[in-house]
Amino acid sequence: MRLATIRTADGTHAVRVDDDAAVELGPPDLGALLRRPDWRAEAAAADGPRHEIAGLDYAPPVPSPEKIVCVGLNYRNHILEMGRELPEHPTLFAKFARAQVGAYDPVVLPAGSDAVDWEAELGVIVGAEVRHATPEQARAAIAGYTVVNDVTARDFQYRSPQWLQGKTFEASTPVGPWLVTTEPGDAPLSAELSCSVDGELMQKADTGDLVFDPAALVAYISQIVTLVPGDMIATGTPGGVGHARKPPRYLTEGSELVTRIEGIGECRNTLVRG
Amino acid sequence: MRLATIRTADGTHAVRVDDDAAVELGPPDLGALLRRPDWRAEAAAADGPRHEIAGLDYAPPVPSPEKIVCVGLNYRNHILEMGRELPEHPTLFAKFARAQVGAYDPVVLPAGSDAVDWEAELGVIVGAEVRHATPEQARAAIAGYTVVNDVTARDFQYRSPQWLQGKTFEASTPVGPWLVTTEPGDAPLSAELSCSVDGELMQKADTGDLVFDPAALVAYISQIVTLVPGDMIATGTPGGVGHARKPPRYLTEGSELVTRIEGIGECRNTLVRG
Repeated sequence: MRLATIRTADGTHAVRVDDDAAVELGPPDLGALLRRPDWRAEAAAADGPRHEIAGLDYAPPVPSPEKIVCVGLNYRNHILEMGRELPEHPTLFAKFARAQVGAYDPVVLPAGSDAVDWEAELGVIVGAEVRHATPEQARAAIAGYTVVNDVTARDFQYRSPQWLQGKTFEASTPVGPWLVTTEPGDAPLSAELSCSVDGELMQKADTGDLVFDPAALVAYISQIVTLVPGDMIATGTPGGVGHARKPPRYLTEGSELVTRIEGIGECRNTLVRG
Repeated sequence: MRLATIRTADGTHAVRVDDDAAVELGPPDLGALLRRPDWRAEAAAADGPRHEIAGLDYAPPVPSPEKIVCVGLNYRNHILEMGRELPEHPTLFAKFARAQVGAYDPVVLPAGSDAVDWEAELGVIVGAEVRHATPEQARAAIAGYTVVNDVTARDFQYRSPQWLQGKTFEASTPVGPWLVTTEPGDAPLSAELSCSVDGELMQKADTGDLVFDPAALVAYISQIVTLVPGDMIATGTPGGVGHARKPPRYLTEGSELVTRIEGIGECRNTLVRG
């Protein structure tokens, strides 16, 4: 089941994106939907006003999550090829909700940065409140997956020991176009994640190669703070970022950024000046 | 003018804390009050139901801010005494709203940590929306000050290169008891900031010693992302933290933590097991 938040002339709506149409579910966005205890059954059964697929204007799936938690180095092959040891604990940092843009929105180049880089990632959206979750509770708390590009201003990221300022620029992070729901018992996703810039393949990895998989991340983070419906975890990016290339490669005005996870979806974004 | 969010039998209320009573202002908390364009005048003029000062139960001033931005090394004397150079840019990291507790609430020792430390800080609360703020706009966007203790699980902080997981434990960060409002033209605050544990003075500094003062921080952060009413900036802590002592000192069950800024207020919190 694909669930999205769309923008219309009368505001945003949570919708189920069927093959032939998007069907309004009632709540104004997926954040509000996911706070309903029985959201899976409600979304599956809903039959409201319909919208043509072709003209949909996608907001980020959860426009105003309480938390966005991002994960650092988390792809096994990439860590090993860098000659590092696999980490014992995940590296976590935050991103503010205002960094998000929809799947086809412009991405705004941060003013003052000339080192804007791509980071294709699997996004995990939380569908139930959990604290100190067991592995089973963590798996059951996952609503599903989405596509994220944790676009990063490398110069700002490395200005100080903490990465936040390079990671949370307004309107810099594509998310979407939808949430693909999972069922509580599902195995971790193994699917091809890729990132292309102006048609050139830059990153390609399998989401099954994560050191800390989605349920492990939910369980770990929930030891620290309560996760609530709508929270998003950006699970980390594989090798192939522009900053590590020789010479480095960056996004510039007009760059076409395509972020894709097979079976989940695709974001297509053009870089613009703020 | 002192403004607070108090908990009562019928929910929370934004109040003005006068010398003789707390006066309800209408909105359920300071976050809602600060979103009103004319909040200073409204708060000064309001005359609603009154509460005795003695029995007030303080919530964090803004219980659910959109953003909490924390600042790393920012006290000049402390940086210089450590033999470091003054930084060119502030070090920024985030804290989630659920980390906050009120000024007299218990502080929950993070499960799994045995290195819980204090960090007394000046908190700055934003009172107007700003993006790419000039210095004047930044000064005018400050609603006022509060007292913060950025209680930190050092073992979690240093598990990975990013500090978030040691900084955002649920119910770990005292904030309050109130917001002391400033006027748009006010000079940066110069006041004694201190932290005591079980009656022993651990930190003492002047908030005028900040490398990046409140308006500079508002201006800087607003280059990255829009600041909105209710956002809080925790401006950094001076020397004297427990982790840097020889031998190190940490907070344990029953520790009494007092965080004070002269002329602003005081938090008194007891450490409890979760």
